[in-house]
Amino acid sequence: MKLAAVGSVAFDAIETPFGKTDKIVGGAGSYIALASSFFVKEQSLISVVGGDFPETFLKQLQLKGVDISGIEIKAGEKTFFWSGRYHTDLNSRDTLVTELNVLADFQPRVPEHARQADFLMLGNLSPAVQLSVIEQMSVRPKLIAMDTMNFWMDIALEDLKRTIKHVDVLIINDEEARQLSGVYSLRKAAGIIRAMGPSILIIKKGEHGALLFHEAEVFYAPALPLEEVFDPTGAGDTFAGGFMGYLAAAVNHDFETMKRAIIAGSALASFCVEKFGTERLLEISHTDLQQRMQEFVTLSTFQLEA
Amino acid sequence: MKLAAVGSVAFDAIETPFGKTDKIVGGAGSYIALASSFFVKEQSLISVVGGDFPETFLKQLQLKGVDISGIEIKAGEKTFFWSGRYHTDLNSRDTLVTELNVLADFQPRVPEHARQADFLMLGNLSPAVQLSVIEQMSVRPKLIAMDTMNFWMDIALEDLKRTIKHVDVLIINDEEARQLSGVYSLRKAAGIIRAMGPSILIIKKGEHGALLFHEAEVFYAPALPLEEVFDPTGAGDTFAGGFMGYLAAAVNHDFETMKRAIIAGSALASFCVEKFGTERLLEISHTDLQQRMQEFVTLSTFQLEA
Repeated sequence: MKLAAVGSVAFDAIETPFGKTDKIVGGAGSYIALASSFFVKEQSLISVVGGDFPETFLKQLQLKGVDISGIEIKAGEKTFFWSGRYHTDLNSRDTLVTELNVLADFQPRVPEHARQADFLMLGNLSPAVQLSVIEQMSVRPKLIAMDTMNFWMDIALEDLKRTIKHVDVLIINDEEARQLSGVYSLRKAAGIIRAMGPSILIIKKGEHGALLFHEAEVFYAPALPLEEVFDPTGAGDTFAGGFMGYLAAAVNHDFETMKRAIIAGSALASFCVEKFGTERLLEISHTDLQQRMQEFVTLSTFQLEA
Repeated sequence: MKLAAVGSVAFDAIETPFGKTDKIVGGAGSYIALASSFFVKEQSLISVVGGDFPETFLKQLQLKGVDISGIEIKAGEKTFFWSGRYHTDLNSRDTLVTELNVLADFQPRVPEHARQADFLMLGNLSPAVQLSVIEQMSVRPKLIAMDTMNFWMDIALEDLKRTIKHVDVLIINDEEARQLSGVYSLRKAAGIIRAMGPSILIIKKGEHGALLFHEAEVFYAPALPLEEVFDPTGAGDTFAGGFMGYLAAAVNHDFETMKRAIIAGSALASFCVEKFGTERLLEISHTDLQQRMQEFVTLSTFQLEA
């Protein structure tokens, strides 16, 4: 098994300035698995859903090579549900409904065959739950990446600090990096956060791209300026999934490879936001992805000498 | 004459979380001229100051090769004065004092020998004043660039639209691009603004870099993540001055050269914010600048193939 990932598989109901959806499939785990499936076939997704969750989506994951034996189905219960409304600029949103349902007491169980996975991706969940997944691994993965959010910094900071000690790559946004470090300068924040455990920090900046910090090295990945962002839901998880999928399929895992992995994640995220939910990720081809990655080269390449 | 520039030469009093200054020299014209002087020696600055303005600074400009015969000195009057206080994150500020003084009825007069300048940079001033400078040129410059701000969009939009028709490069920030175009997507905004006249649009995004739009081409210039921003005053003008100075000294003015010019402007702006006012621009060497431009290469270079 190349990659194991844990994260929510859920229902979302989304309102944007362009329209609204009924309950559609969402959740960090769904986006992570779909994104990483572009690069890696041997992956296992660990999650939980209720009896109300559509079997068709689980089948779609399987068709993409995702092992779903770690997705627990709680027959008599309901799937995690989130509903939100984006503001006009799509950069902020209000949460309308959060029904934890099966996620309330989620105790992920890593299937036996996934406990030796080379790579481990911890989607945004409580840091205690994330730690329990790390502890179930029978061999220390080559690389553990973790997503988290300000919510956990507010209510579970000590747990969070305990978990990130075990992590190689922390993936958060700029606001979260500032909150976690207590400083405004992202370069200083990177030093402080890297001293907490992760040797690598990725700071997501949405429409402004992403920063990759490792020792004294910094890489600034651009974001593609899009004609229109239709629905930002899942972009961050898609980014993380693409990043980890690319790394898990790569031979080396040095700084240069990580740069490419970030471009892969950014390219997938740029597709994700073009339609509601997971729709766009389910329809694009490898050729589409390669062309989009090439656009990132065109976008950011310059030569100091003529 | 390679480059003519018009812009305020002024006094600023600045408060940041790191300290405060008495009246120090500032103004768009000062930053533009100092920045472009790193690349071009034959340049003329058109501005106005009062009798209270220090001759020493004008001498410093001359030492950098700036022709100051277009800077009118109004003996019995006072220099434009601005005072502001930056908020903790340095991304926003309150204006405490604005005393227009000599700038209130500024009627720039382009010296005879500057009217055939190859390049013209219009620093942020009222669009009517900017247009009067264009009209004084005896030969249409190869390239006219213009800075402006939301203030003029609020109170002089028709003047602004009239002026930008004559301009090749418009340099504004993301918020201003959204206001001027009426759309949120910067890619769409670029199309709308370019239809107003400028074939090239540069959108400054502060700590998030800058975007260069020309026909179907886009370039994303990163910003260097700095340990500390000390004083952001003048960064935008320094960027514009560096950009135009680089272009004015270059042989070609194609898209590839413009990319390099943007990196030059970004590198100079990254120095500018390290100390109060113009201090840092006055002390760095060409070697410092070259090293900083090289850092931008390191920061943003990646290869899709290993």
